[in-house]
Amino acid sequence: QSSVTLYGIADAFVGSKEISSVNAAGVITKQRQTVVDSSGLNGSRWGLKGSEDLGGGLKALFVLESGLNIDTGAAASGTSLFNRQAFVGLDSSFGTVSLGRQYSAYDSVRGTFLSAQGNSTSFDATNSATINTALLTGLPNTATPAQRLASLNSYGGRVGAWTGYQTRIDNSIRYATPNISGFQAAVVYGLGENKTPTTDATKNASVSLTYANGPIGVGVTHADDELIQDFHVKNTAIGGYYDFGVAKAFLAYNQAKITGLAKQKEWAVGVRAPLGATTLVAQYAQSKGDDLGKSTSVALEGQYSLSKRTTAYAAFNRTKVDLPILTSDFKNSIFGLGVRHAF
Amino acid sequence: QSSVTLYGIADAFVGSKEISSVNAAGVITKQRQTVVDSSGLNGSRWGLKGSEDLGGGLKALFVLESGLNIDTGAAASGTSLFNRQAFVGLDSSFGTVSLGRQYSAYDSVRGTFLSAQGNSTSFDATNSATINTALLTGLPNTATPAQRLASLNSYGGRVGAWTGYQTRIDNSIRYATPNISGFQAAVVYGLGENKTPTTDATKNASVSLTYANGPIGVGVTHADDELIQDFHVKNTAIGGYYDFGVAKAFLAYNQAKITGLAKQKEWAVGVRAPLGATTLVAQYAQSKGDDLGKSTSVALEGQYSLSKRTTAYAAFNRTKVDLPILTSDFKNSIFGLGVRHAF
Amino acid sequence: QSSVTLYGIADAFVGSKEISSVNAAGVITKQRQTVVDSSGLNGSRWGLKGSEDLGGGLKALFVLESGLNIDTGAAASGTSLFNRQAFVGLDSSFGTVSLGRQYSAYDSVRGTFLSAQGNSTSFDATNSATINTALLTGLPNTATPAQRLASLNSYGGRVGAWTGYQTRIDNSIRYATPNISGFQAAVVYGLGENKTPTTDATKNASVSLTYANGPIGVGVTHADDELIQDFHVKNTAIGGYYDFGVAKAFLAYNQAKITGLAKQKEWAVGVRAPLGATTLVAQYAQSKGDDLGKSTSVALEGQYSLSKRTTAYAAFNRTKVDLPILTSDFKNSIFGLGVRHAF
Repeated sequence: QSSVTLYGIADAFVGSKEISSVNAAGVITKQRQTVVDSSGLNGSRWGLKGSEDLGGGLKALFVLESGLNIDTGAAASGTSLFNRQAFVGLDSSFGTVSLGRQYSAYDSVRGTFLSAQGNSTSFDATNSATINTALLTGLPNTATPAQRLASLNSYGGRVGAWTGYQTRIDNSIRYATPNISGFQAAVVYGLGENKTPTTDATKNASVSLTYANGPIGVGVTHADDELIQDFHVKNTAIGGYYDFGVAKAFLAYNQAKITGLAKQKEWAVGVRAPLGATTLVAQYAQSKGDDLGKSTSVALEGQYSLSKRTTAYAAFNRTKVDLPILTSDFKNSIFGLGVRHAF
Repeated sequence: QSSVTLYGIADAFVGSKEISSVNAAGVITKQRQTVVDSSGLNGSRWGLKGSEDLGGGLKALFVLESGLNIDTGAAASGTSLFNRQAFVGLDSSFGTVSLGRQYSAYDSVRGTFLSAQGNSTSFDATNSATINTALLTGLPNTATPAQRLASLNSYGGRVGAWTGYQTRIDNSIRYATPNISGFQAAVVYGLGENKTPTTDATKNASVSLTYANGPIGVGVTHADDELIQDFHVKNTAIGGYYDFGVAKAFLAYNQAKITGLAKQKEWAVGVRAPLGATTLVAQYAQSKGDDLGKSTSVALEGQYSLSKRTTAYAAFNRTKVDLPILTSDFKNSIFGLGVRHAF
Repeated sequence: QSSVTLYGIADAFVGSKEISSVNAAGVITKQRQTVVDSSGLNGSRWGLKGSEDLGGGLKALFVLESGLNIDTGAAASGTSLFNRQAFVGLDSSFGTVSLGRQYSAYDSVRGTFLSAQGNSTSFDATNSATINTALLTGLPNTATPAQRLASLNSYGGRVGAWTGYQTRIDNSIRYATPNISGFQAAVVYGLGENKTPTTDATKNASVSLTYANGPIGVGVTHADDELIQDFHVKNTAIGGYYDFGVAKAFLAYNQAKITGLAKQKEWAVGVRAPLGATTLVAQYAQSKGDDLGKSTSVALEGQYSLSKRTTAYAAFNRTKVDLPILTSDFKNSIFGLGVRHAF
């Protein structure tokens, strides 16, 4: 009877943000603001999930997960209620097949193997989830890569250094192998479904291979996101961690390639050190290339575990974006004091 | 304490769709696309429902049900969260009275007595839920029936042959009699609430009488949907099934009447044949009239029951729309392979 | 494991509404309409909430609460899913601190100490939740107080007499003291977060002090809502009840001050009389001032308790708004017969 689990995360913090913005004349303006914001360590969310044993090792499973901004109560997405995840699938000894809106294979690797900050949303030095917006906002489908670059250059709101990839894929098929001695592979393919009489659908494809066993974890992944017809963002990453006991160290490398632009080389190094109920987290990430310039981001977190489900935290991120078009750097910083409660 | 049940359906399929569209010059374009789509057999949804025993045979009940497109996570309706059903009511030995957004009496009959495909959404040969859009889209309130016909003629996206009715009624009062030896009657009245100083509110009224007992089921129903001031779509249907054991056979007849247009005569014949865990479903439906031309639709489904709650399926629908204004037919077809999981 | 409670209220009524409206030429038009409406006694809603004992008297808590119009299934707010409440916080013997979208301290006092109709939504004589809309709708940020007054004058849709305050505060911090011998104080501060290079963020601040013990309850509260830069609506209220046994009597006084306008003096008197399973409720409220003219509102409710969770009701409200700019009064009235079911 109990075929569905209701779950979620409520995460909010009081903080201070300094954000740079640049106007058409290239003048940079800085502004500091005190905020109550959502999703410091993890995206606030609520969701429904369940699985059913069908016998013979077969299981049906589904997830419907909706992001929210707990500071205003608004859904995280104005167009997709279950914007975080929405899928139904079957799981067997041959692996799992699922259909819907799903994490790209790249994103699943990033949270576990590439970033010491896990899925930290507001403070992650490797965060870059909104970059696609910068590449597309206000641009016609016929915009050239150079125009897109200019658009990217004028985008200063991001936290975190990396160039970015498509986190979640609509209309996608996902296949993941079973876990075999710590090894697992996955592929996610998004069909686009925007075919017209004159143009093909734009697709998203991503693959991953991961290994996790005891103190060691390694992941390698590639994502090819066709944002619009023949305009691709491709990311290829390798990274992993080793748990030394006193601390868990992370190292990751990513290569981002945007149609018409030079390669962007990115790396991150981080550490998670448990001290009783407290965990200290530090991470540095950097992105560098000829066309997109250089970004660096440093993050510090102190997490205090009030229970398995509730964590109090203080966190800081400072990101510097040095874009060729600009005469000086963007410098965004954010500090927050908050609580994350899982239910 | 457990006064509320959380429930839903997650239904997704991989498929291929060929859709015709017609431009202003009357040129028909066909396009085939591979898709991951939601709601093959049933509309994906999640909801809350509950009932409370008030003593003396009286019960309070409520339903809040929200449709969703599991392929993107989006709510099925951009304007109504609980777009499928939202009502509160009282149930007694005299029947049930409820207030809210509710299925029309016609729709309740259709799902059980008119269509062998039940509430099949993407493949139902009798499906036509979007026709009102075609009658209204982009048209001013003063558009003539002939203009509406032209609009309908240019509408080629539908699956299924029938002309259509209003499925769910906002601001409605529903009364249903108790079930008496298999007989039950219902009436749903929607108040419109769009009265202005110069025009009356547009109303929706529907009634039904059904009989279901053992192998036999019969339903008769009428719906009068005033889409805009003095512009009505009226549907009158009779249909039913007989369960021969080896198969359950369905037969239905509907008459659709749109203000200013000739009658549209519609019928459907279908069968559901259980073969162990598999159920084969076939249905043919047709709509024919002087003004709206002729539509035919044929559907085939193979449903394999993995459990009471989970069904794997393959399904096909081919619909041909032959409209007087067009020089050739629309031919839409869809094939899908999916899974429906109820929770 | 059961870390979350799913709850809500489904409240709908059949009724008749007479609403006045005024056009640009100052002509008043009246219109009566039969309706099925949501939220007669309380706002229809669904929500998730939970709390976790962290040991040592510390608790984590969260609420996510979404309003809905059960007559159409639509979310009550088009922009904020959890528009009623969304917060996470910590509770200890030193009080409760929470972050998110929360009731203003004023609103919490109003529901319990100022209005005999509690949180009655559609019939409350003191209701005025939409006034901010009237002050802001269609007006540029540079509109003068006189222009805002004119806008307010042309606003005739409200039920209830009082001028109004901001019910819920986005991006807010709330601190409430523990309950000490019936006394409790709270402060809610909303950060605005709309700072620009040239203007400060607009803030919302509210405080309250309440006393409730046995038959007596008293509350005093002040709210300062900066709707736009340097344009404030300030409300200061005192009120309370005494339960005589045969009836609970309410008396309240409020002073509303809008930037650039004269003070508006407001009061309400009400009574709740239990007669077996029936409770009779009556309330009269009035608002009077030099600039905003005079409003009066009278309300009557008969509530019949079918169970602890389910109430049938009949309710009436008549509100008269006498604005200086108008040549005659607005007179809005509403009558309804409904059911409220909590789950």
